[in-house]
Amino acid sequence: MLCADITMFDYSKGSITVEEIRMQISGKSSVGFELVSEGNNVYSTFNPELNVPNPWQFVEATLEEVEKATQLATQAFTVYSELDGNDRSNFLLTIAALLKKNKTVLKETFCLESGLSSDRAITELNRTIWQLELFAKIAKDNSWRQIAIDTSNPNRQPTPKPDLRKMNIAIGPIAVFGSSNFPFAYSTIGGDTASALAVGCPVIVKSHPMHAGTGELVARIVIEAAQKTGMPEGVFSNLNAAGYTIGQHLVQHPAIKAVGFTGSIAGGRALFDLANQRKEPIPFFAEMGSTNPIIFLDDAFENDNLQHWVEKYTDSLLKDAGQFCTNPGLIIGLDTPYFHSFLAKAATTIANHPSYCMLHPTIQENYNRGKANAEKQNFVSILTTVKKQKANYAAQTILKTDAINFISNPELHHEVFGPFALAVVCQSVEEITEIITKLEGQLTGTLVGTNTTIEKNKVLVAALRNRVGRLILNGVPTGVEVCGAMQHGGPYPASTDSRFGAVGTHSVNRWTRPISYQNWPNSLLPIELKNENPLIVWREINGQFTQESL
Amino acid sequence: MLCADITMFDYSKGSITVEEIRMQISGKSSVGFELVSEGNNVYSTFNPELNVPNPWQFVEATLEEVEKATQLATQAFTVYSELDGNDRSNFLLTIAALLKKNKTVLKETFCLESGLSSDRAITELNRTIWQLELFAKIAKDNSWRQIAIDTSNPNRQPTPKPDLRKMNIAIGPIAVFGSSNFPFAYSTIGGDTASALAVGCPVIVKSHPMHAGTGELVARIVIEAAQKTGMPEGVFSNLNAAGYTIGQHLVQHPAIKAVGFTGSIAGGRALFDLANQRKEPIPFFAEMGSTNPIIFLDDAFENDNLQHWVEKYTDSLLKDAGQFCTNPGLIIGLDTPYFHSFLAKAATTIANHPSYCMLHPTIQENYNRGKANAEKQNFVSILTTVKKQKANYAAQTILKTDAINFISNPELHHEVFGPFALAVVCQSVEEITEIITKLEGQLTGTLVGTNTTIEKNKVLVAALRNRVGRLILNGVPTGVEVCGAMQHGGPYPASTDSRFGAVGTHSVNRWTRPISYQNWPNSLLPIELKNENPLIVWREINGQFTQESL
Repeated sequence: MLCADITMFDYSKGSITVEEIRMQISGKSSVGFELVSEGNNVYSTFNPELNVPNPWQFVEATLEEVEKATQLATQAFTVYSELDGNDRSNFLLTIAALLKKNKTVLKETFCLESGLSSDRAITELNRTIWQLELFAKIAKDNSWRQIAIDTSNPNRQPTPKPDLRKMNIAIGPIAVFGSSNFPFAYSTIGGDTASALAVGCPVIVKSHPMHAGTGELVARIVIEAAQKTGMPEGVFSNLNAAGYTIGQHLVQHPAIKAVGFTGSIAGGRALFDLANQRKEPIPFFAEMGSTNPIIFLDDAFENDNLQHWVEKYTDSLLKDAGQFCTNPGLIIGLDTPYFHSFLAKAATTIANHPSYCMLHPTIQENYNRGKANAEKQNFVSILTTVKKQKANYAAQTILKTDAINFISNPELHHEVFGPFALAVVCQSVEEITEIITKLEGQLTGTLVGTNTTIEKNKVLVAALRNRVGRLILNGVPTGVEVCGAMQHGGPYPASTDSRFGAVGTHSVNRWTRPISYQNWPNSLLPIELKNENPLIVWREINGQFTQESL
Repeated sequence: MLCADITMFDYSKGSITVEEIRMQISGKSSVGFELVSEGNNVYSTFNPELNVPNPWQFVEATLEEVEKATQLATQAFTVYSELDGNDRSNFLLTIAALLKKNKTVLKETFCLESGLSSDRAITELNRTIWQLELFAKIAKDNSWRQIAIDTSNPNRQPTPKPDLRKMNIAIGPIAVFGSSNFPFAYSTIGGDTASALAVGCPVIVKSHPMHAGTGELVARIVIEAAQKTGMPEGVFSNLNAAGYTIGQHLVQHPAIKAVGFTGSIAGGRALFDLANQRKEPIPFFAEMGSTNPIIFLDDAFENDNLQHWVEKYTDSLLKDAGQFCTNPGLIIGLDTPYFHSFLAKAATTIANHPSYCMLHPTIQENYNRGKANAEKQNFVSILTTVKKQKANYAAQTILKTDAINFISNPELHHEVFGPFALAVVCQSVEEITEIITKLEGQLTGTLVGTNTTIEKNKVLVAALRNRVGRLILNGVPTGVEVCGAMQHGGPYPASTDSRFGAVGTHSVNRWTRPISYQNWPNSLLPIELKNENPLIVWREINGQFTQESL
């Protein structure tokens, strides 16, 4: 059945009932422009707030459906990757417009499938729309081509120098594994998908089973936009999957040329291994989270700043049940009255704060397991005890230990996904530096202190820089800006390849490869490389950046 | 024993005897600034021209020596990566100057260990020097930092926009596996090593056993330059290795953060797998060669061009026994009198051409095996038969088959490293396109034809572009220009990651990772990111490239 054949929703009205949502969710995968459901495995999503399954069901995709999606993606690639950037831009902007138009149903479904608030849903939807607009701009301005031109020198001795012109092109069809914690911004049409579509790569999404309804609604919007803007069938597919089989099959499929993944270290690593064991290994970019150390140097608390930092820090820790890959889960400071006072106040603040619902019972089980494991370690004290919670609500906590214990016990280095932090009390800046040096790779590292102190502690700063992708001063790591200068990635296991990032303009680099044209006459060169530079692209010509013609 | 303690050679004189070379080669590995040889395994290099071992011996490095080299590299990293670009530039230029000064001994040793000519030795040494000068320039101009700055907007709603500044930094100590066929330009201080040193990565070279003497002499020059310019010990080490153990150990060592490799698919893939199976997987860039299809469209032979192309093509095929990763080993054309005439003339030309010595008996054995395997396939005819050769000399050949046979027989798709080409006669351009579509990834693809024909065959051009890293028009693939617009890499198995290249300015991207500074005051930012832009680096500020201050 073609998508166009089913009733597309128009929820410009302000509210919608669960029953109305149920009527809209087909439970099917989108393979090309078709909705399909030949499989036998059926699953539901779950409402963690009410602790009941949602009243809609999904049919897991079959291997034949995967095959069909990859065939269509391969066919679409030859057309889609050769389109004018304006056409791809238009496609992305049309998706953005349809997301806006369907805000109500998307928001409500998002909340029912995640336990997150309406405010969060709207913030995240807006971010998703903004990302699409950013990538539409990139598709149009061709900055992602990263053009380099070296002009010829026929008189060079002993051999003439040829004319060489290099630009990035799309790598091929991409598989995207969305995250559990960003049903909009890092799932179906989130950063990975939007960045790949911007540069000409068709995308097959492995739908996240926790929010398959949100996923289906978004997927159908993407397909509606593709049809409206004349994109080739296969430019986008969305495959329902409850277990691992569909995802594994996708990663191993010869038609897939790169993968974007957001999720756990165990899941990311397993798929990374499959991608590398292929006959033709492919780039596999996984963003797998981290503990995001935040280091309070003593003078951070000068001028009665202590209360300011208690509020700022605890807000960052608790927000949306701390279910962020940049959640500040490791607090490091010196054994001084200031730091102990900060910890005591932070512990009290979070104890008095209402708890948040987590995304799913399995997320909460993992949280409870990770928290309990940390609590039972030797020389760990519990600063915050929150009384028994509603089902699926997270009991936020801060634990405390000392540097020697932390360094010697790797059990304390694991990320506990949720509103959890471990504070490590150190005897010296050297001890802090030693901790940092022994940490695994992190997405972010934060320093809190005065300029004078930062200036004085160059060794610590260098050590922290060596372990992270983003170095924050006097801030908190949550709230990841979407822009060119953002790096969201870091040394393993924060991500599988620290040379790339998952957020912002340059995240497109994951899906492109350079090609050089040697000795081509101007008339035959692709438009981006022609002397006249009709698209007014930024180009590096003989080492100088310019938008001028040649 | 410190390098400085042994007599450093000064061969500014024009000639040198084998005995004089023997006196200079210690047979030891360089670990940091020390020459070491605690191992028990001893091996020699081989003179393929005379078919005798060279009169010098090498002691294979021990695992303890690997450990020491990695420890020193880790220590050196913290200092070396933080140096001013001018200091690294000076180091590279000093290496280049010492290579020039020692031209005679280097050239003679190169020839004795490779069977390549003096002319080739000098050309390759000059290229190596030129590469060092290019990377010295990059170290100095900081273009490799790829800086992006997004300025803050404190008034943005709903949240203020932070100041974010991103630049590339060195990834860590690198292991380099040099090639057999470029003892200078892609070995000890070749492109991989020079590019890594330029951006602040210490390098440990796994010395190629076929030219360990050349390797040792070059390594000692690098160390002399490091000492003269005050570089930290461990910035460079050179480990002798006859078997696989040392290389495997190096790739698996936690201190190594990326690997550059040039060589065979089997060797590259085995090490790639080890790199990815590590607890902390690391980038492994292997350039593994290809068959480099060259497609003659009929009108290529217009205006008596046939003889021109016979000469141009056969020169490219035969030069230095065809021992290039860009050797044009696959000729494709249409079943016309022109193409058959081209093949007949090319076959006669190479039959009448003197043969060349190959690098090593094992290289020749592989060549003979690959050639014999291709010759014995069904529906393959031999166009060139060269009579029995001197030991280690390659019998050049061109074989011929048709498209249907080629497509159905994968045995014919393998690269045969040496002066070997397979011609495939096709019935239509569609058949050519089908062949291209079914090829594995290639470093290069070449089209020969008039502008009108190229214009007409967009589908073929797109298919070829999809399989290669460099697209050449009316040229030959050998002679890889070292510049910004070069792409030397391609879809697997041409290289392990088509997003990077091994030649030219941007090959440094393999060894760097981005880091973002969020919310740092100007006074604390690294010099490259400061408002004033004192180094006059090209920077992308809010999406616009400029060398201006902020």
